[in-house]
Parts: sequence; C-alpha cells; structure tokens
Amino acid sequence: MSSAFGSYLRLSLFGQSHGPAIGITIDGLPAGMTIDMEALCRQMARRAPGRGSLSTKRSEADEAEFLSGVLDGVTTGQPLCAVIRSTGMRPQDYAGGVDLLRPGHADYSGHVRYFGFEDWRGGGSFSGRLTAPIVLCGALCRQYLKGQGVEIAAHVLRVGDVEDSRFPEDMAGDFAPLMEMELPVLDAAAGEQMRARIRAAAEAGDSLGGEVECAVTGLPAGLGAPFFDSVESVLSHLLFSIPAVKGVGFGGGFALARMKGSEANDPFAIAQGRIVTEGNRAGGVNGGITNGMPVVFTCAFRPTPSIARPQQTVSLQRMEAETLSIRGRHDPCVVPRAVPVVEAMAAIGVMELWKERQACLQSSPTRE
Amino acid sequence: MSSAFGSYLRLSLFGQSHGPAIGITIDGLPAGMTIDMEALCRQMARRAPGRGSLSTKRSEADEAEFLSGVLDGVTTGQPLCAVIRSTGMRPQDYAGGVDLLRPGHADYSGHVRYFGFEDWRGGGSFSGRLTAPIVLCGALCRQYLKGQGVEIAAHVLRVGDVEDSRFPEDMAGDFAPLMEMELPVLDAAAGEQMRARIRAAAEAGDSLGGEVECAVTGLPAGLGAPFFDSVESVLSHLLFSIPAVKGVGFGGGFALARMKGSEANDPFAIAQGRIVTEGNRAGGVNGGITNGMPVVFTCAFRPTPSIARPQQTVSLQRMEAETLSIRGRHDPCVVPRAVPVVEAMAAIGVMELWKERQACLQSSPTRE
Amino acid sequence: MSSAFGSYLRLSLFGQSHGPAIGITIDGLPAGMTIDMEALCRQMARRAPGRGSLSTKRSEADEAEFLSGVLDGVTTGQPLCAVIRSTGMRPQDYAGGVDLLRPGHADYSGHVRYFGFEDWRGGGSFSGRLTAPIVLCGALCRQYLKGQGVEIAAHVLRVGDVEDSRFPEDMAGDFAPLMEMELPVLDAAAGEQMRARIRAAAEAGDSLGGEVECAVTGLPAGLGAPFFDSVESVLSHLLFSIPAVKGVGFGGGFALARMKGSEANDPFAIAQGRIVTEGNRAGGVNGGITNGMPVVFTCAFRPTPSIARPQQTVSLQRMEAETLSIRGRHDPCVVPRAVPVVEAMAAIGVMELWKERQACLQSSPTRE
Amino acid sequence: MSSAFGSYLRLSLFGQSHGPAIGITIDGLPAGMTIDMEALCRQMARRAPGRGSLSTKRSEADEAEFLSGVLDGVTTGQPLCAVIRSTGMRPQDYAGGVDLLRPGHADYSGHVRYFGFEDWRGGGSFSGRLTAPIVLCGALCRQYLKGQGVEIAAHVLRVGDVEDSRFPEDMAGDFAPLMEMELPVLDAAAGEQMRARIRAAAEAGDSLGGEVECAVTGLPAGLGAPFFDSVESVLSHLLFSIPAVKGVGFGGGFALARMKGSEANDPFAIAQGRIVTEGNRAGGVNGGITNGMPVVFTCAFRPTPSIARPQQTVSLQRMEAETLSIRGRHDPCVVPRAVPVVEAMAAIGVMELWKERQACLQSSPTRE
Repeated sequence: MSSAFGSYLRLSLFGQSHGPAIGITIDGLPAGMTIDMEALCRQMARRAPGRGSLSTKRSEADEAEFLSGVLDGVTTGQPLCAVIRSTGMRPQDYAGGVDLLRPGHADYSGHVRYFGFEDWRGGGSFSGRLTAPIVLCGALCRQYLKGQGVEIAAHVLRVGDVEDSRFPEDMAGDFAPLMEMELPVLDAAAGEQMRARIRAAAEAGDSLGGEVECAVTGLPAGLGAPFFDSVESVLSHLLFSIPAVKGVGFGGGFALARMKGSEANDPFAIAQGRIVTEGNRAGGVNGGITNGMPVVFTCAFRPTPSIARPQQTVSLQRMEAETLSIRGRHDPCVVPRAVPVVEAMAAIGVMELWKERQACLQSSPTRE
Repeated sequence: MSSAFGSYLRLSLFGQSHGPAIGITIDGLPAGMTIDMEALCRQMARRAPGRGSLSTKRSEADEAEFLSGVLDGVTTGQPLCAVIRSTGMRPQDYAGGVDLLRPGHADYSGHVRYFGFEDWRGGGSFSGRLTAPIVLCGALCRQYLKGQGVEIAAHVLRVGDVEDSRFPEDMAGDFAPLMEMELPVLDAAAGEQMRARIRAAAEAGDSLGGEVECAVTGLPAGLGAPFFDSVESVLSHLLFSIPAVKGVGFGGGFALARMKGSEANDPFAIAQGRIVTEGNRAGGVNGGITNGMPVVFTCAFRPTPSIARPQQTVSLQRMEAETLSIRGRHDPCVVPRAVPVVEAMAAIGVMELWKERQACLQSSPTRE
Repeated sequence: MSSAFGSYLRLSLFGQSHGPAIGITIDGLPAGMTIDMEALCRQMARRAPGRGSLSTKRSEADEAEFLSGVLDGVTTGQPLCAVIRSTGMRPQDYAGGVDLLRPGHADYSGHVRYFGFEDWRGGGSFSGRLTAPIVLCGALCRQYLKGQGVEIAAHVLRVGDVEDSRFPEDMAGDFAPLMEMELPVLDAAAGEQMRARIRAAAEAGDSLGGEVECAVTGLPAGLGAPFFDSVESVLSHLLFSIPAVKGVGFGGGFALARMKGSEANDPFAIAQGRIVTEGNRAGGVNGGITNGMPVVFTCAFRPTPSIARPQQTVSLQRMEAETLSIRGRHDPCVVPRAVPVVEAMAAIGVMELWKERQACLQSSPTRE
Repeated sequence: MSSAFGSYLRLSLFGQSHGPAIGITIDGLPAGMTIDMEALCRQMARRAPGRGSLSTKRSEADEAEFLSGVLDGVTTGQPLCAVIRSTGMRPQDYAGGVDLLRPGHADYSGHVRYFGFEDWRGGGSFSGRLTAPIVLCGALCRQYLKGQGVEIAAHVLRVGDVEDSRFPEDMAGDFAPLMEMELPVLDAAAGEQMRARIRAAAEAGDSLGGEVECAVTGLPAGLGAPFFDSVESVLSHLLFSIPAVKGVGFGGGFALARMKGSEANDPFAIAQGRIVTEGNRAGGVNGGITNGMPVVFTCAFRPTPSIARPQQTVSLQRMEAETLSIRGRHDPCVVPRAVPVVEAMAAIGVMELWKERQACLQSSPTRE
C-alpha cells in the first residue's frame, strides 16, 4: 500500500503530478500549535523548482491550503489536510500516452503495477513533486520538535566525485545558515566545484547523483526499539520512499564494514554528569535506540534519470526497440533540492518515534 | 513499538536472549503448505552458533516447536506460533546487573528505553539470538516463494578490506551452492583471505565488519509502491532491524551517487518478448516498484562490538570512568552467520509485497 | 487516532463541519473502474440535507471533486482523494465560542480531547456532515462489489415506537426500490406512521431515535476471521463511528439472548448443491466468518440531541448551571438520512474483508 | 487478518483449542509493573471451566508461563509472551475429521476460510478456550489501570427471560464482590432464577443465551475520537471477537432508539467543581469520546450452539442431509463464564485508548 505512514503520527499522501492537486492528511499533530507560516513557506521554497540557477525552469507556486485541522492559524489536534493546487503545467509536454519507456523511470514498473490505468502524466505518483506535501508535513513536525530542543540540519555531502566535509561528530557549531543556502555545503570550495560539475553535466545533456548528510540533535536517549521498529528502520523506511534514494547509512554507514571493532566502537564517557560517547560512529543509535548523541545518516541519490542524451529503450505500444532523447525541464542534479526533503523525512520519523516514546513515558515508573 | 511487522503477513516477535524461550507468531501464511522441515532446519543451522571454525563456541540447539498453525506438518492458515527454548546458557557469565556499559551495545540506550527494568541478560531483546525465529519465519516464506518461482541467494561481499566478486547483473548461474558454504563467497580466494582476516582479528582481541550482497530472482514486475511502501522502504525497514546493520543500498547503492545519468540508467530492451533492462544498476526497482529484474541489495555490518581489547567506558552504577575488556564467546565477525538472516528478511519482505499485490490482482481488470 | 481505517482498503478522513472542505483519501481501490458518477451522486443525494420533508432545511450541495486517483473518469489504482467544499454556512449561527454545552453533543468531551483548540463550529469533526465523504467512499466500494455480485440494501426498521417489517431471512425479493425512497421502509403503513411521529416530535420541539436494518447479499463463505477481525468486529468498528449509533446487533442480535439453542441455531441444509442454512439467526456469520448467507445487522440510533425544548446544562466559560434551547436547522430524526451512511459503512467493511480474502485466495491451494 | 489488535497496545493471539499450547504476545505494557500473580490467577480461574455447578466438567488448568517480558516477576517493557499448555484433552472426542457440520458453529465457514486445512479439533481457533489468554492480558491491563484509578465491573444482566437489575447510572456502590461470585448478579433472586433456567435447559438437552452488563469507572474525559476510532468502535471491535457475542449497546443501547431526545439527552451539571451529566444514557461517551462518566455497555450472547437435542444438518463429506446430536461436555449457558472475558476486553480497549491519549497529552499545551 502506498499512501499511508505511521501509527502515532499518521500520514496519508495523495496526488499525481499533473492531477488537480496534491496533498497530505496528518493525524496526530499536537493541538494548540500556532503554525509559523513564514518558516513553513521557507521550507517549501527550498524544495520548489525554478528558484535558482541549478534547478529546472518550471516555476511551481507550491502554495498550500489547509482544508482542516487549523483554526485561526492554530492546530486543532484534529486531522490536518493540506493541499497544493497544480499550476504551470504544460500538458502538451505529456501528450500521447505511455509509449517510450524512460530508462530509470517508473514508466514500465508503474504501468504493470496499475494495470495500465495509472495517471502517468508528469511522473504521476512517482513525481518528485509529491515531496512538496512531505516538506510541508516535515515543517510542522520540526516546529514542534524545535520547541522540544530538537534541531535538524543537512547538507550536500557529494555531487558526483566532489565531496563536502562531514558534520563534526559532536555537531558543535551553528548549522542554521545551511538552510539559507541554495547549495548547502560546509566547505564553500566544494560547493563551487559541485556547481561546476552540475553545469558541465547539463551542458553534456547528462545528469549527476550525490549524497545528503543529515543530523538530528537534541534527541534524548531511549527513542526507538530493537525489532522491528529501530530508529534506523523507521527513518530508512521514509528515506527510501524519496524518489532517487538508493542507499542509506547511519553513522559510519558502509565505512563501518571496513573497520575493526576497536575503531568502530564509540567509547562511553561522562560529560557534565551525563553519559555520552566519544566519537559517533554509531550515528546516535545503539541497538535501534537513540543513545543521546546526534542521529546522523547519509542518503545516496542516483543521478536524475531524465537526460537529453539519446538512450536505448522500448516502445511499449509497438514492443520495438527505440532511441529516446528526453526534452523538457529537468534538474541535472536533484540533490540540492532534495536536502529539505531529507530533513522533512527526518522530522516525520523522529516525530513518530517521539510520540511512541511519550505513550510509554507516562505509563512507566522510573526505577530510582 | 518493537515486535510487530507487516499488514499482509503479520509478524510478532518475542523473547529475550536468556529468558525461557524466544519465538514468533506469523499470521497470513498460506494454508495447506506441507512444511519442508529438513529445509527449515538447514536454514536454522546456517545461523546457529558453534557450527564452524569462524563462530562462537556456544552451541545452541535452535530447535523450534510449533505451538499453533500446523496440523500434521501442514500449515492450517491460522496464526502460526513457533518457539525456541533456551538451552546452554551460562548465567554466571551475566551475573551482577548492568554496570559497565559495553561500547557499541544497547546497554545504555536500552536501559533508558526500558526505564531500568529491561531483561539485560545476554543482550536481552537486542541479542543476535532473536534472529533465530526470523530465520525460521523466512524459511517458511521462501518455501512458499520457491513454489512461485522466486529464489533468494546471498553471499559475503566484504570482510574488512577483503572484497568478494559481485553477483552478475543478470544473475545467470547457479547460486544454490552458496547455501551449503560456511563462508558463502563467489570467489574462493577472497573467502580464504576473509578467513585469514577473521582469525587475525580474533587473535588480536579485535573484530571485523563486512557486507552481505543478496539477490531475489524470479519476481514479477509490479510489486511495491511509490510513497511510502516502496520495495526499498519495506526491505530496508526489515534489514535495519538486524542487529549490526548500519547501511543498506539497492542496485548500485552508494556508487550511484558518483555516476552520471548516462551511466546509471538501465536501458530498456526486449528479450524473449518480455521487457527487460540491460544492466541492473537500479537493483530491480524503479519508482519503488519491481521492474522484473532481480532485486539486488547490499547490507553493511559494523564489526562485532564485543572485543577482548580493553575499551574505555563508564560504570552506570557508580557513574565513573572505567576500562572494560569483554570476555566470553563472541564471533569476531558476525557477517558469515548473518547471511541467512539477510536472506530471511528478504523473504519476509517479498512475501509482504507479494500478498499486497495479490489483493490487487484479483480486483483489477487488466487493460488489454 | 481518529481519521484512519483499514489495512487493505485504507481510508483517511478529514475535515471539520465549517472548515473550507471535508474529504477522504482512499488507497486500495481497484484500478480501471469506470466511476458511475450518476450512481455516486444518487447516493450522495440520499444523505444530503434539505431534500425532503423530513430533513433540515439546510441545503448542501455535496459536490465532490476528485483531486487524485481518477483519470478520465477511471480509477487509476493510485490513492484517490475526493473533497467536498463547504457552502451554505451561516457563520452567525455559530458565533461566540464554546460555552453552553449542548446535552448529547461532543461539546464537552471534544473540548477536553483537543485541549480547547478544537474547531467546534457546527460540530467540527463530530458533525454528521463528515458522513458525506463516507457515503462517497461507500458508493465506490459498492460499485466494485456489485460487479462481483454483492448487493447492499437497508431500510428504517424503527422510528420511536413504530416498527417496520424485517427483511425476510432469505432476502428473497427486490429491494432496489428502497434506494429511491425518502423514508425507505418495507411496509408503507409503518412508513406513514413514522412520518407522523417525526412531524409530531418536531412540533413538540423534540426528536426521535430509531433503527436501521441492513443486509449484504451475494457474499461468498469464508470472509472474516475469529479473533480479532471477525466480520462483526470490522463492521461494528465502522458502524459505531457513525455519529448517533449506540447499538449494533448481527442476525437475531439482542433477541438471541432470550432464545434457546434449539431456536437460535440455523440448521445446515443443501440447496442447489450448495450448503446453506435454514433460517439466518446468525446473520450470515459463524465464528466471525461469513457462511454464505446474507450478512444482516441492525443499528440503533439515539434521538437527535439538538432539540428546541429547554434543557439543563452548564456554561463552560462561567462554570454555572444554565438553561439551553437549541435553535437552528436540525433533523428531528436522523434515521432516514442515516440509511445510506449505514449502507456505505457496510460496503467499506465488506471491501476490506474482500481484499483480505483475495490476498489469501491466490496463495492457497484448495484441498480437493 | 485474525490475530493482531491495537496500535498502542499490540496484541498477537495464537493457538488452536487442541494444539500444544495457546498464548498471546503483548507489546506496549508499561515497564516496571510487579505482576500481581494472585490477582491474575483469580481472573483466569473465573473463566476456566470445571469450577462450578453451571459449567462443563472439563477441567483445564489454565496455568500461564511467561516466555518473555517478565524478569523476577516485574514487567520489563519488552514484548511479553504468555503461553498456556493444553492438558485434559480427550482426542477420542474429536476423531474422524470435519463431517457433520454443527449448527451455529464455525465448522463450515472456517472450513471454507482455511481451504480445508484448518485445525478443527475442539473448535480450533474458534474455541472459547482462546479467551483464556485474553483474560490473562486483560488482568495485566486492569492491574495498570487500577493504579490509575480505573475499575471494571460486570454482571450477568440476563439469562434467557430472567433479567438482573442494571447498574445504577452513577455506579455508586461497591461492585468488587461481583468478582467473587460464580454467577455474578446484583439481585440474588434473579441469580437463583437464572440457575434454575440453566439447569432446566441442560436437562432438556438445550442451551440459553444472555447478556452481560459492564461498567468502567474512573476514566477521565477525553479518551477516544470521532471517526474511526470512537470509544464504541474500539470496544465493540474487541467485544464482537468474543465467540457468541451478537449484539453490543452503549449506555441506553437499543432502548435509545425508542426514546425522545428530551429523554435520551443527559443534562450537564456541576458537581464538586467538575462537569458531570445527570443520568448516563450516553454510556459515558459523547461523539466517540469519554465524557468522564462511567463507560457502560451491554453484550448479547447467543445460546451455546452445542446442544444434545437432535438437529438437522449436513455431512460435508457426503453432501447429504443428516441428523446430529452433540455429545460431550458443554456449558448450557456460557454467559457466567463470559463475564471475566467481557471485563478483559474492556480493560484491553481502555488501555489502548489510554496510551493513545498519553501520546497526545505530553505533546499538547493546555489552553488556560
């Protein structure tokens, strides 16, 4: 089943790229939260296309309307539904029905899945556009979490062969400025190289993949569980539903596979009367449960599949080999615009874990 | 919440490492399946400790008893509960209560999560031992899937710095022999090097991480969904609840982040009247949905956290810094024994997706 | 959690009575179903207020817009979201904030549940208006079910002390005309008496309760389960979320409590080579599972709580006793308009059970 | 799907009547609860057969073993699995395979549902014996709830035509003694008549139905939700999975259908500074949400279907009409033994609602 997520914070996502509207229903948001509309719009704008030099020229307003769950700008605790009307479509770009299967796209797998009845226009349910309501939902969650001392930051760790610095393991520093950057990086020089690579790929009619590193700070120990709802399970479930994500690693991630135990273990220590770890190769999670250190993870994005270069493919209607060259407005690298989506998924996953924890907190005595 | 998984195939896992028994309840298995007990035991034996030269000396029988859901060796379609009684425990190994926090373990995070009341003996709910009922469940699922033409194979792709060959993208070949190998690898020479590295780590009182590559063949196109239950989401949810897994990648995984679109896209082609892709960098999944190619993924395992080398840590009871050297019977590298666990999780995830698809199949006309 | 229902057919309901719109997202509808808009509108019209002599004078258009999941009038298999914009509100009816608690309403319980932040206008989430998207969803489900030979019929069994005839146990006859009647009854004379009682209650500034009897025919044996998702559990879960329903009985219902086993048991017999029961005191369900006979149930509705007669209550703002006389446009008896809502819930519940069954059907060999 | 219930308190039930064991896994119980084993056994004994003059002569020990989730008699917060081994079976009672379909039983519907592979011995999954782990689970929940000031009481309201008094609407009085009675009634004379009716039915080879009334006191306002998880929805879902329950009513239940609004509405009033209602025809629930008054409901039980009197039926194997007279040990009226099962389901449902509420409580500011 596609559109539902969560037991404590329940989401229901709907919409196809070129239908009348896309949106999300969120059940389980706290009542009484005055929505910071300015912050919400800022997050939406980070994801929206057509804003910067690196992105597609399509301009989508991404203006959300709250159909329920909000009264005078304050959440009511009732299910909140927000919709984003579609604008700026150019139907002529998508005339003719599914025929030439775009490599790397869901044209074929979706066609089989929906028995040929799918709304395939503009990517249908598979479009990156569906991440707009995700960012909206994430913005609401992170507003709540911020009030609880939880912050989320992310940056572009890689574009092709160019790598940014990693977050420091203790997350010391101010990472709020990242949110203001079109291409959020820690190392400006790396950012310049990334831009150059993206421009070059665009000129070559090609595209580039990359990685996003994300950190959640301020989390208490004790969120999550071993089987089956580990912190990693809940977050990866969400992250792998972002179109183009093909890899997820926590803490050291795949690099841990090459380490020795004596290198990979984070020693416990005491700091300011609290138990901490020195180093954070575990990414803030031991045994599926937060240990009080920052939760850090990395997502790998495959390159944008829509490229101008001619590609070999198949005509579905004639069942014949064909050559395809994809025209139209496509980001040569989706990674910069994916940063707020990754952050939003982190906020949603943490909110789910947070509420699960709250249900236990009150009902359990603490052993003194 | 920890113990539950699935909407179509519903699992409920229970047990702590040193409690009376561990087990699993499975709801949604097909009725009328004659359980191949020999195959089931073979899978259980692959995971069980104490069988080979690379593994801990603990010998656990891992004999399962079916409490329900089976009549005369045939599944009844009713919830199936299987338990594995605990034997061979040495309580003296675990006397004294949680005190010195073992780096890399859930001693601290679990202590907070369960308010100090957790059954911490032998790792409690966090023990690798909990994977025994997972393997049992996976064995039942793969028996059903095998009858539908679906096969699952996996091998150790990496131990430390030693790398095995990858599966061929078209999965041509016979990979059944892997299941008979203590250290399943495609390249025997790599296997020898891995053994040497594991022995050396053990002698040094240290441990090693690694990777497992797994492939599911024979799947039809059309399983899975875009948001939120993509094939990658469902499988990663399960894989990240295996203790020690810290990274998961599908198809090219993290390597896709370094590629260009023209390299990463799998061109569509026609073979024997069917649509296929040339290459399988997508790992058999486009837009969250199977495309009919083998579903291929890689899991990264961190090194075993229990090492004999002295480690810096904290006494929870005295809140003082301490040095800890972990004695006892621990695998210097869990990766070989993790292979059947990864396969089992793949079988469980595919079974969930398969049943979801079946519920749609009958209720949908196919457009001719 | 309020807004979600179902594992196989997943619903997410949203909207407050006087918010901008109410709606529903439905995931799991079959792809390729040409929506019979005329039938859908007819169902919506049966529920809508202001159409007949028995109902409130408010006129709500109840026109649904499909935001997703439909392409050229055909379901795509993707999540379908439908919204109904609010019109005809008279905000002046609801000025001033929650103060005088209306007896029988959720003013107080909802105020506590939502911490005082609820959208209370016009009943908010508690309004009968929220049943409009339910009827829409039910209309889609029953269209599919009709194609499978499943029909749903219902009538007003009781208004106050006036009782209609019951459905014949074998459901022999044509009950389609019920759907065309403003006050659907089997016995026209009972209908006349009901109208008289409703008019008299309205004149007295009072209201009346009643019962609806509903039957689902054409169901195969084998839907449902014992614990916890019996046919009765799934249907009652839905029925008891209809505002005003306070009792549900299957087959003989509460009358079975007064019977002997020799009276209550339905003897098995063979008819046209099929196993049937003589009589249907079980309401088509044995052990939580359909037995192939019509599924029959009755819902009890409490009287409309909004009455003109003065009632004793409390001012929430001043915490003082008060007298309240409710003005405005309210049905003196909601039962006639509740009939299509009951049918819709039956259709939704049966669809959920049907899909669960389909997931099992293909995966199980049948013992010959 | 059958065996799973709950999002906050997750249950997984397993076992067939004559399999090796039946049991339940409970995830979400508070950690640190010292289990009152004496109270737990007392609840189990109330349900167990063979204890009194009214019940079947089968003697089942119903001794539970905790396989997980309990350490030194204290809940750990990890999934708790409890099993009850089967004893005292007389397999010769059940030799020969399903053939003569017992009217009122699930022999036929279950046979179809499980494709002929069901464990049909002794009722299989449909047996009342499956309620033993339910009572165990309920006992754990009510122990927690008692610590929060919540009490549950129930009595036999009806056996055939004999009716007990109802609980007073304000639940003033001490109802703890009911739990010590073999036939718990408020009016001893009614109890005597019930016994006489049950004896007479047994002598006539027949059986009797009845009703149970149950009240939950001490609940705060604000538990539950409108659509779809009303208090009535959650409780009825559980109650209708008790074998033999065919009707459920809240507060006035079906009697409300005959009332006027001026009779059915509970006026609000202030008592000791708290908002209360005068009368409790709503059964403590307005708009699906508790209003702070006792939650009161009634369940109707059909008569025991196993009767000695000859009944018309069908041989499944020969597809011929037959006459059946059921021998063996069967309660002529299950209602007295069903009382603790109804209470247990109430405790489970309230616990689910309680935890859902707790997850909201901490995350919501209260408007002052």
